[in-house]
Amino acid sequence: MTGAEIEKLIQLLARLPGLGPRSARRAALHLLKRRESLLDPLMRALDEVARTVKACGQCGNLDTADPCAICADPRRDAGLVCVVAEVGDLWALERSGAFKGRYHVLGGMLSALDGVGPEKLNIAGLVGRARRGEVREAILALDATVDGQTTAHYIADKLAGTAAKVSRLAHGVPVGGELDYLDDGTIAAALNARRPA
Amino acid sequence: MTGAEIEKLIQLLARLPGLGPRSARRAALHLLKRRESLLDPLMRALDEVARTVKACGQCGNLDTADPCAICADPRRDAGLVCVVAEVGDLWALERSGAFKGRYHVLGGMLSALDGVGPEKLNIAGLVGRARRGEVREAILALDATVDGQTTAHYIADKLAGTAAKVSRLAHGVPVGGELDYLDDGTIAAALNARRPA
Repeated sequence: MTGAEIEKLIQLLARLPGLGPRSARRAALHLLKRRESLLDPLMRALDEVARTVKACGQCGNLDTADPCAICADPRRDAGLVCVVAEVGDLWALERSGAFKGRYHVLGGMLSALDGVGPEKLNIAGLVGRARRGEVREAILALDATVDGQTTAHYIADKLAGTAAKVSRLAHGVPVGGELDYLDDGTIAAALNARRPA
Repeated sequence: MTGAEIEKLIQLLARLPGLGPRSARRAALHLLKRRESLLDPLMRALDEVARTVKACGQCGNLDTADPCAICADPRRDAGLVCVVAEVGDLWALERSGAFKGRYHVLGGMLSALDGVGPEKLNIAGLVGRARRGEVREAILALDATVDGQTTAHYIADKLAGTAAKVSRLAHGVPVGGELDYLDDGTIAAALNARRPA
């Protein structure tokens, strides 16, 4: 009884991560009640990113410029390349402010379960960058999951013949994390990687 | 570092109910990765509702037609009018399938705290419908909150001089609800309104 147009909008909103059918309904109503202040600006913002944002030909980051702002920034260490699965991971690393090198976005992780083989990821691009001597060190910043670690091993293998040194993120206790709530694997990893206080 | 266009999109998505800053970021990325299958259709759906959906001049429901499909449906009881605060409440009642009358959407509830007075709600429209003899019974389906009950009392007062009989939704144990988890007010109301088994 909500009309086909509104139902269509609700269905599309429900496909966004974090919105279920109920909250998509609320979001649609929220938009309909705020045309000038929210619906129109959102429509324009979607149009704007659809027209202007593209994947960087070098690293796979999403930006309006190609090469992206990170690849084009001369103050960043061009030889230090952080390898991430998704652009969201790149954003997370940028938010940390701790990394001043460049990136390589794979576009996913190897997954036997989901049928993602190496040909579906931008691994050839990374190996190409390494072969051309553009990568001094490749930091594999992949999830500490089976797929993440499989992907990391595969990439380390592929980079073995190049000049690129391969490293990975440290495992350990998350900052602010409570030991009591940590899984055994993390505690073991943190113990093994212990450092002088 | 995500670019002004993407940041703008994230900020707008974060204003949707149910999406915080983090999930808005994920949603934006989700959209950027699915241009043809999600971003473009969502843009078209927003444009479609913005162009076609309007408030029904009679009841305040949102629909592409005015009067809306509910007001125009001759099989529905025109004299039985369910008074709701928001279109979302109307949708909830329609989902229940239990109501075959028409609606009147107030557009909110009276709230001293939020500075919502009677002039901001579509109460005059309801009184007008009642004065014209179009309302046999007005069912006040308002939240069982202070604002909801204040609004219900105010409307009952305003309808007092008309032919409209005023009723309200029953209080009681929610279907599937466990007594142990119910508040005292609901238990007391359910006791007082007890019916022969």
